[in-house]
Amino acid sequence: MKAFVTGGAGFIGSTLVDRLLESGHEVVVFDNFSTGNIAFLQDALKSPRFRLERGDLLDPGVLANAMRGADLVFHFAAHADVRFGLSHPRRDLEQNTIATWNVLEAMRTNGVRRIAFSSTGSVYGEAESFPTPENTAYPIQTSLYGASKQAAEGFLTAYCEGFGLQSCIFRFVSILGERYTHGHVVDFYRQLMEHPAYLDVLGNGEQRKSYLYVNDCVNAVMMATEKATDPVNIFNLGTNEYCQVKESIQWICEHLGLKPELRYSGGDRGWVGDNPFIFLDCSRIRDLGWKPQFTIREGVIRTVDFLRSQE
Amino acid sequence: MKAFVTGGAGFIGSTLVDRLLESGHEVVVFDNFSTGNIAFLQDALKSPRFRLERGDLLDPGVLANAMRGADLVFHFAAHADVRFGLSHPRRDLEQNTIATWNVLEAMRTNGVRRIAFSSTGSVYGEAESFPTPENTAYPIQTSLYGASKQAAEGFLTAYCEGFGLQSCIFRFVSILGERYTHGHVVDFYRQLMEHPAYLDVLGNGEQRKSYLYVNDCVNAVMMATEKATDPVNIFNLGTNEYCQVKESIQWICEHLGLKPELRYSGGDRGWVGDNPFIFLDCSRIRDLGWKPQFTIREGVIRTVDFLRSQE
Repeated sequence: MKAFVTGGAGFIGSTLVDRLLESGHEVVVFDNFSTGNIAFLQDALKSPRFRLERGDLLDPGVLANAMRGADLVFHFAAHADVRFGLSHPRRDLEQNTIATWNVLEAMRTNGVRRIAFSSTGSVYGEAESFPTPENTAYPIQTSLYGASKQAAEGFLTAYCEGFGLQSCIFRFVSILGERYTHGHVVDFYRQLMEHPAYLDVLGNGEQRKSYLYVNDCVNAVMMATEKATDPVNIFNLGTNEYCQVKESIQWICEHLGLKPELRYSGGDRGWVGDNPFIFLDCSRIRDLGWKPQFTIREGVIRTVDFLRSQE
Repeated sequence: MKAFVTGGAGFIGSTLVDRLLESGHEVVVFDNFSTGNIAFLQDALKSPRFRLERGDLLDPGVLANAMRGADLVFHFAAHADVRFGLSHPRRDLEQNTIATWNVLEAMRTNGVRRIAFSSTGSVYGEAESFPTPENTAYPIQTSLYGASKQAAEGFLTAYCEGFGLQSCIFRFVSILGERYTHGHVVDFYRQLMEHPAYLDVLGNGEQRKSYLYVNDCVNAVMMATEKATDPVNIFNLGTNEYCQVKESIQWICEHLGLKPELRYSGGDRGWVGDNPFIFLDCSRIRDLGWKPQFTIREGVIRTVDFLRSQE
């Protein structure tokens, strides 16, 4: 199979690329390196089955050319920043919605029929039921990130219906692990390296969040794209647990041997649009035979170890 | 109140404009006249409280200037064509999603806080429960039109959360009545004027559809924008009934005194992405005190009378 991976130089994308190459596939990475990192492709670049295409998803001609001959598109490029969406509201629209639409059009141009898409559990907004299943009550979007991903999902499934594409859509919780570049673990880690005596925390620390270790995530993506056969297959991806921000802080501090003063900003959420409780029902992907190998705690600690190894 | 009505020269928009002027409000219409009709504004143009701005929603600077000083935006401009979406897939993205995003940004620039938005029952895709309530199971989009409107809703509600806007979102069934310009009644009427002996019908005639008379629709929009106070208020709009396509054909033919041969193309839907059953639960808007004055049959017949008056 020839896989075309957008965002293939990113955290999750590059981990997927390594796995695809290990499995014997041909891989083309398409990345604009806005947040991607060439170092994440150091193994991939040694493979004769690998090709790197530098380009932007907002440039439809370049994209369509690069995609020629692909069998399966892994669309993993995104502006993956829930927190700062309000500072640059057009970015989510462009990088997540319009970019996805461009990917769909490039697939149509090239006759590529299969797509796997990295969506997000943020599409549930502030969900009403926990753990939240894929067919929960029609959500109201509360973040530009969630809105832009929901929009991308919608166009994608309309293309499946209208143009005969086949898709797997993954609604991820936050992903952790090696190559992790942003999110609470890196924020806390950097703070603690700078000032080990105290830690500033957004909200009251009681927000309940879900995380998944990146290799478990990639396992699920590989399994689902092999096994799922409906025109549209939507999967939540997460573990069977969630944790409070303050628990994660405790794991990080213990692992680093630090006892900082915790300075909470207060309130039940970290920022406007922050979702105080994320916990997804992942029985659909489990029914395919997938099971995560790592707990949230193990994912957090591996992430800290990765950050430490980068010093 | 100073109302800013996008698509105000269109079928529903212009009917709303007349109502707003009757109610004593100031009205600015913003329309690119791609499908709008200046004749629909002949009464409005006589009012000193009315101003017409010709412009395109894809031109953010012009839009922001025109909106200055508005109190409430009625965003009713759309590419309102479910059936031919696949022939020009970019149009839904641009005219419905990006255009809505531009409206939201113009509101932010101008400090306009309130918006009423014409969404669609098509956002439910092929719904699983009937009558379909606003909080039905998370739908999968099956048309580009539905996808583009869902996307617009998502950005709109994220703006409500992030920037403090207040919104009413209306998920319409198909609207009928005076100034009606496209849809099954006009298709059938035109065919029957051209060849009264037969009528070509897409599908098997058993598709179950819902319709609402335009003045009932405008009544609901006026009432909801006056009464709804949540940051986000979503309302289905339709009657308590649905009809089969073949019933509507019968009403039209009887009213015209014709007995054409019915030539069905067959299949349970009219085209790829056609939704064979649309029936919305409208108890939420009814709970505000709204009630439609006209049945679907009356709406169909008034539409035929309107089309006849245009000959």
